[in-house]
Amino acid sequence: MPNHFCSAEDCSDLTGWIREALILKETPYSDKLLGANKTLGLIFFNASLRTRLSTIKAAQNLGMETITFNVNKEGWQLETAHGVVMDGDPAEHITEAAAVMGGYCDILGIRAFPTLLDRKEDYSEKYLLGFQEYAGVPIINLESAALHPLQSFADLMTIEQHKKKERPKVVMTWAPHVKALPQAVPNSFSQWMQHYDADFYIAHPEGMELDAKFTKNATLSCDQDEAFKEADFIYVKNWSSYHDYGEPLKNQQGWMVTLEKLQRTHQAKLMHCLPVRRNVVIADNAMDSRHSIIQDQAYNRIFAAQLVLKKLLTR
Amino acid sequence: MPNHFCSAEDCSDLTGWIREALILKETPYSDKLLGANKTLGLIFFNASLRTRLSTIKAAQNLGMETITFNVNKEGWQLETAHGVVMDGDPAEHITEAAAVMGGYCDILGIRAFPTLLDRKEDYSEKYLLGFQEYAGVPIINLESAALHPLQSFADLMTIEQHKKKERPKVVMTWAPHVKALPQAVPNSFSQWMQHYDADFYIAHPEGMELDAKFTKNATLSCDQDEAFKEADFIYVKNWSSYHDYGEPLKNQQGWMVTLEKLQRTHQAKLMHCLPVRRNVVIADNAMDSRHSIIQDQAYNRIFAAQLVLKKLLTR
Amino acid sequence: MPNHFCSAEDCSDLTGWIREALILKETPYSDKLLGANKTLGLIFFNASLRTRLSTIKAAQNLGMETITFNVNKEGWQLETAHGVVMDGDPAEHITEAAAVMGGYCDILGIRAFPTLLDRKEDYSEKYLLGFQEYAGVPIINLESAALHPLQSFADLMTIEQHKKKERPKVVMTWAPHVKALPQAVPNSFSQWMQHYDADFYIAHPEGMELDAKFTKNATLSCDQDEAFKEADFIYVKNWSSYHDYGEPLKNQQGWMVTLEKLQRTHQAKLMHCLPVRRNVVIADNAMDSRHSIIQDQAYNRIFAAQLVLKKLLTR
Repeated sequence: MPNHFCSAEDCSDLTGWIREALILKETPYSDKLLGANKTLGLIFFNASLRTRLSTIKAAQNLGMETITFNVNKEGWQLETAHGVVMDGDPAEHITEAAAVMGGYCDILGIRAFPTLLDRKEDYSEKYLLGFQEYAGVPIINLESAALHPLQSFADLMTIEQHKKKERPKVVMTWAPHVKALPQAVPNSFSQWMQHYDADFYIAHPEGMELDAKFTKNATLSCDQDEAFKEADFIYVKNWSSYHDYGEPLKNQQGWMVTLEKLQRTHQAKLMHCLPVRRNVVIADNAMDSRHSIIQDQAYNRIFAAQLVLKKLLTR
Repeated sequence: MPNHFCSAEDCSDLTGWIREALILKETPYSDKLLGANKTLGLIFFNASLRTRLSTIKAAQNLGMETITFNVNKEGWQLETAHGVVMDGDPAEHITEAAAVMGGYCDILGIRAFPTLLDRKEDYSEKYLLGFQEYAGVPIINLESAALHPLQSFADLMTIEQHKKKERPKVVMTWAPHVKALPQAVPNSFSQWMQHYDADFYIAHPEGMELDAKFTKNATLSCDQDEAFKEADFIYVKNWSSYHDYGEPLKNQQGWMVTLEKLQRTHQAKLMHCLPVRRNVVIADNAMDSRHSIIQDQAYNRIFAAQLVLKKLLTR
Repeated sequence: MPNHFCSAEDCSDLTGWIREALILKETPYSDKLLGANKTLGLIFFNASLRTRLSTIKAAQNLGMETITFNVNKEGWQLETAHGVVMDGDPAEHITEAAAVMGGYCDILGIRAFPTLLDRKEDYSEKYLLGFQEYAGVPIINLESAALHPLQSFADLMTIEQHKKKERPKVVMTWAPHVKALPQAVPNSFSQWMQHYDADFYIAHPEGMELDAKFTKNATLSCDQDEAFKEADFIYVKNWSSYHDYGEPLKNQQGWMVTLEKLQRTHQAKLMHCLPVRRNVVIADNAMDSRHSIIQDQAYNRIFAAQLVLKKLLTR
C-alpha cells in the first residue's frame, strides 16, 4: 500500500480492492476497533455533499473520529508558492498549515478544485501535493484539480456489481451543462478504467478530448449514437475543454442523455457521479428509468472510502 | 410509531411521551447502546442554535454518531420542482440529494424555513416532504415552513413539569418584533395543545389569526389584558400575518410582555422558544423575573429530541 | 482548580501543569474514560485553525464528545449590552444564549477576537465574561480580545522541552505585518512568563508597548539586535498598538526576523504561534532553519488543551 490515496496509481490491486470493498458493504462494522484513537481530518477548499458525508460515515464505521474543516471559510486562505513575500490575502503557508494539521490528524482528506483559468497551475495539484509533502500523514484525495479517485473506485465497484458479462462495453459520454466544470471525474474514471477489464469508449463533441494520458486505452468517438450501440454501461458527465482550457462547450443540447438513447443500447445501466442537472445533462425519463444505477454509485461511496481508510490504517 | 416525526400527528401518545421524556431527563445515558452504528444527519437550510446543539446532544446521549451539514453553504442549492430544466442556481434535485443522504444516514433531521413570500408554496413544505418522499429513512422536522414539533414537544414537557393544577390556563400571546417571522412555532404549539389538557387561549392583534386548522380548539382574543387574567402560563411569540401572508405588524409596542402584565395573571409562568429580542418582545423585567421558565424550555429540547430519536430507533 | 481557564491566573501550579501535560503527550489516551458522556462545545465568533483542530483532538483523546458552532454564521449575532432595546442586528442576548449552550454542554470554549476599534470595550471581554457569568459551566478561553492562554501554555511546554539551561533568556520580539493584529498572544505570553523561570525580554519599536500589567516583569527594549544577544529563545509576533489603540505600525521591514539575526543569538530556538506570513514576519531562511521549533509549539497545543480539559473534568 502506498502512503497516500490520490490516484489510480495508489491502488495496488484493483480486482482485490473491489472484492474487499464489496465485502465491507455487507459487513460494514467488522473493523469497528481499527480506528480507535485515530482521527480523520477532512479539509474542504470547496463545496461537497456525497464526499463529505460518505467519508465521514466510512470513518465512523471504522470507529475513527473525524474533524471537518472548511479551511477558507472557517480558517483562512493558504499560500502555496514558495519564496513569496506573503503580503496578500493568504494568511498562512501550506508548509506550516499542512504540517500542523498532520500533527493533529492521523489521515487527512483534501478537496481542492481547479480554478479552470490556468491549466498548468491547476494540473500541478499544488494543494494536494503540498499536503502530501508537508503533512507527514497519509493524504486522501477528496477530488483535486485533475482527479477524483474515491468516485472512480465507487464507480468500478458499481459496474462490478451490475455487469452481466465478463468484459462489458462501458461508454463515458460528455453531456451538456450550463457552466464550466472540471475534468477531474472523467480523467479519473478513464484512468481507473485502464486497470479494469472492459471495452471502454469515450464519446464527446469534437474538441472536447481529455488529457491523452488518461484516455490512452479508450476508444474515442465524436458520434454518441454510434458509441451507445451495444453499450452495457453509459456513464454521463459534462466537462469543460482541456485543450481550450476551462471553456464550456455551449449549444449542444443534442448530447443530453434520454431514455430513447438508452433504449438503443444493450439495456445499458445509466451512471452519473452526481450532482446532476436534470433535463440539461440527463432527461427525467432516463433518470427515473430502470436503467439508472446512480444511487448505487452514490451509496458505494461509503465503502470505497471505508476500504481506502482501512488500507491506510493497516499499511 | 409513524415513520417520521414532522408534526403532532406523528406523536401517537402525548401523555406517554411526555412521561417518558421526563424519565429520560433523569437518566439520559440509559440507552447509550441503542444508537451504536447509527448516524443522524442534521441538514440545515437555515440558521439554528438550540435545535442544532440540543439534537446533537440528544444523539450523543443515545450513542449515535452525527453529521451536521449546512446544505446551502457547504453544498449547494437543491431544486424541488419536478420536470424543470435545471439551468438555474440549484445544482442538484432533492430527488437525488435526499436519497443519497438517506443512504448515508439512518435518520435525517431537516430545517427549512419559509420564504414568507408565497403562502401556498411555503405551506406545501417542499423540502420536508421531499426528504420524506425520497430519503428512505425517518425524517425529523427541525423546523419547517409551517411547524416546529421538537419545540412544541419540549414546551409541553415544560408545562407538565411546572403546572400546579390538572387543567391550567395557557395563553399564547403575539408580541412585537422588528421583522417578519414564520408562523411555525405558534402553529405547532397550537397543534400540540389540541392533544393536551388545558384551557388554551391565543391573544393577538386583529388580523393576526393563524391558520384555523391549527387553532380550532383555542379561544381567540384580541384583548391581551383580558386573556392574561387567571393565566397559569403565558407563551410569548411573534409571528407575521398568515392572511396578509408574511407581512409583519408594526407599531404594536403595547403588546410587549412586561412584568406588570405577568403580575396580573395567576402567577403565570413565562415561556418563549428563543431567540428573543429583549425589550421588543419581552421586557427585561419579565425576562429576569421568577416567572420565567424559558431556560427550562430550552433545556428540555435535549430530551424531547432524545425521546423522538429513541422512538425512531426502536420503531 | 478554578472554575474556568481564561488566563494564567487560572493555572494554579504552572510547573506541575507543564510536567503533567508533557506526560499526557507520551500517553495521550490514558484518560480515555474520563470524558464519557461529557460534551465540549466550541463556540467560534472568529476563524480558527490550530485552536479548533487541536482542542477537538484533545477532547477526543479524553473520550469527550464535541460540538463545534460558528455562532455568527451558523446561528446569529449576540447582544452583550444590558438594558437595550434589541431592535438591531443581534437576534439573541448572550444572557439567554450562554445559559442555553451551558445547558447542552459540560464545558464551553469561546473564541471572540477584539474589534481593535475601542480598547475599553475590547478589554472588557464582553463575550468571554458573558459566557462565564451566564453559562453555568466551565469556560475555556480559545483566544479572547486580550488573552490566548491555551497558546501560552503550549508555548511554555515547548520552551521547557527545548531549554538547555535552568534559566534561559527568552526574547519576544515584535515583527512587521500587513494588517492590524490583536495583542492577545503577546499579552498572554507575557502574563504566563511572570510565572516561569527565565530572563524575559520584549523587543519592539518605540510606541509599541503592551499593557504594562502584562509586561511588568519583562525587560523592555527598542533595540532588537541588542535584545537578541545570548538569547536562547526568540518568540516572534506582530501586534498593533495598545496605546494608539489598534493602529498597525508600518514600514518596519527591518524588524523581520531572519536567519542572520538568529545566528547572532545563543543558538536560539525560533518560536511563533502561527499563522505566520513568510518573508513579512519571518524570512524563509529562518522558518526553514534548524532554529525553528514552531511545529513543536503547534503540536503541543493538543496536550495543553487536553490537560486543561482534564483539570476541568476532574475539578
